[in-house]
Amino acid sequence: MGRLTARRPVLTVNIETDAARTRRRPDTLAVEEPLEIRVGGDPLAVTMRTPGHDVELAAGFLVSEAVIAHGGQFRSAIHCGGPGTGAGAGAAGATENTYNVLDVALAAGVALPAADAARRFYTTSSCGVCGKASIDAVETVSAHDVAGDDLEVDAAFLLSLPERLRDAQAVFAKTGGLHAAALFDGRSGELLVAREDVGRHNAVDKVVGWAVLADRLPLSGTVLQVSGRASFELVQKAAMAGIPVLSAVSAPSSLAVELAEARGLTLAGFVRGTSLNVYAGAQRVRVPVEA
Amino acid sequence: MGRLTARRPVLTVNIETDAARTRRRPDTLAVEEPLEIRVGGDPLAVTMRTPGHDVELAAGFLVSEAVIAHGGQFRSAIHCGGPGTGAGAGAAGATENTYNVLDVALAAGVALPAADAARRFYTTSSCGVCGKASIDAVETVSAHDVAGDDLEVDAAFLLSLPERLRDAQAVFAKTGGLHAAALFDGRSGELLVAREDVGRHNAVDKVVGWAVLADRLPLSGTVLQVSGRASFELVQKAAMAGIPVLSAVSAPSSLAVELAEARGLTLAGFVRGTSLNVYAGAQRVRVPVEA
Repeated sequence: MGRLTARRPVLTVNIETDAARTRRRPDTLAVEEPLEIRVGGDPLAVTMRTPGHDVELAAGFLVSEAVIAHGGQFRSAIHCGGPGTGAGAGAAGATENTYNVLDVALAAGVALPAADAARRFYTTSSCGVCGKASIDAVETVSAHDVAGDDLEVDAAFLLSLPERLRDAQAVFAKTGGLHAAALFDGRSGELLVAREDVGRHNAVDKVVGWAVLADRLPLSGTVLQVSGRASFELVQKAAMAGIPVLSAVSAPSSLAVELAEARGLTLAGFVRGTSLNVYAGAQRVRVPVEA
Repeated sequence: MGRLTARRPVLTVNIETDAARTRRRPDTLAVEEPLEIRVGGDPLAVTMRTPGHDVELAAGFLVSEAVIAHGGQFRSAIHCGGPGTGAGAGAAGATENTYNVLDVALAAGVALPAADAARRFYTTSSCGVCGKASIDAVETVSAHDVAGDDLEVDAAFLLSLPERLRDAQAVFAKTGGLHAAALFDGRSGELLVAREDVGRHNAVDKVVGWAVLADRLPLSGTVLQVSGRASFELVQKAAMAGIPVLSAVSAPSSLAVELAEARGLTLAGFVRGTSLNVYAGAQRVRVPVEA
C-alpha cells in the first residue's frame, strides 16, 4: 500500500502574525500515476489514477464503456511485465515501475467498442508507461520554458487569490457546482481573466485559450489560481502555456509536484486563510521577515 | 448567459428536528453539455463542459495538447450549423441545440497530433451532439435497468453515508487529495466496498469493478455515495452498473439530473449534516412524518 501515498518536502508559510513563520517538513501526498488499460494486448485507454485496485479499475471502466455487463465476460488481467520486474521502483516517491500497464483478457465473443469511441491518450507501445514518461512527454512537446521565469510574488499576494477568484465567480456561487480558474499578473496583481466550468481542466483550458487567442503566450510573469486540487493535468496545462506559478486551494498529487519540479514551475497548495504550502519552485515565493 | 445555469425542481429534506421538514423549490444548477471539438472538419475530442467561451476552450485544449503554441496558429472557429439553427433550444433547461460542435481552422502547416494521441470519445459524425444525445447513448448501451428497482431508503440513512465514507477513507485523510466512492446495501445498510482515487471517475470505476468481478451486477438495491460533485459521467457509471441511488456530498450538474431522470435513478446532492436535496427519483427517499 506504500504507493498510495508519497512523502514530499514542503515549505509551509504562515502569515497569521506580523512576522511570518515558515516551516520545512515532509508532507503526505496522494500518489497519481498513469494506468494504461489494454485489451488483448491493444491499448484502449490511459487514465491518471492512484495505484491500487487496478484490476477493479479496468473492470469498472469496461462496464462504464458498455464493453462488459457481467463478471463472466472478464476473463483475467495481468500487469504488463508482471511482478518482480519493477526495477528502479522501491525508493519513496520513485516513479519508475512496470505496474502501470494492465492487459485484460475478455471472454470469447465480447466485442470491443468501436475504435473511435475509446479514450486514447498518451497510449504507448512499450511496457514502460509511468509518471516519468508522462513528465518527459510534456517536456518533449512544450514550446515554452518556464524554468527561467524570474517572477517573484509575496506569500500574502498568493493568499489573497482564492477570495479574488471566488469574487470573480460570484454569479455562479449559487450553484456550488463549478470549478474556477483565474489568471493574475504576478507583478501588478491585476486579474487578467477568470473562467468557470463543471470540469476543472475545462476552466483552465478556457483561461489558456483566452490567452492564446490574444497571442499572449507564453504567459510569463503570471499566476494561475484554481479552485480545487492540483493534478498532473493542471500542471501540464500551466507548463504548456508558460505559466510560472500555479496556486491551488486544495492538495496537489505526487505527479503534479514532480512535473512542477521537472519543468521549473512554482506549485502552491492548500492556499487558505493565512497559510499555504509550497511544493515546488519556492524561490518565487517571497516571505516576510521571520519572527 | 442563460445556458450557464439551469433551474430545476428539487426536494429539500431537513431532519434537524424530530419532525422532518420538506420543501419543494426550484434550484439553480451548473449546466453541463458535451462539446465536440473538430479540426478541419475531423472530430478530435469531446469534453463535458459548461457552455460559454467555447472557442477559448478549444484553443486552450489545443495548447495543452501541443497542437498550437501561438495565437497565429489558430485561424478561426465556427459552431457547426452556425448561429440561428438551434431549433428546439430556447426553453429553460432545453438540451437540444447545435452549439455543441465547434470546428476549428488552423493556420497552414500546423500539424495535428497523431490519431491515437487524441481524446476521442462519443464523437459523432452529425452536427447534433447534445445532452439529449449523450443520454440516449447511455440508454442504448445500458444492459441493466434501474427504473424498476423498488429500493426505498430513509433520508436519515442517506445523511449518515458521507461520514461513513470519510471513516472508510481515514487512511488517506492526511493527504486531503483523494476522491472517494462507497457502495452500501440500501436495505441492510452494510458498507459493501469503498475505494479512493485522485480521479473521481476512477474511484467509481473501482467500486463498479469490484462488483462486476464478484459477478454482482446489476447492483440492485444499492446506494453509491461519492465525496464530491455528481457529474453526467458519475450518473452514467451508476446507471451502467444498475445502481438505483447515487448520493453526492456536493452539487449535481444539469445533465447529471437529466440522465438520472431519464434512467430512473435517484439522485441526491448536498447531502450534508441534517439536510439533503433530491433531484430525481424522490419516490425512493423515505421522509419522517412532517411537522
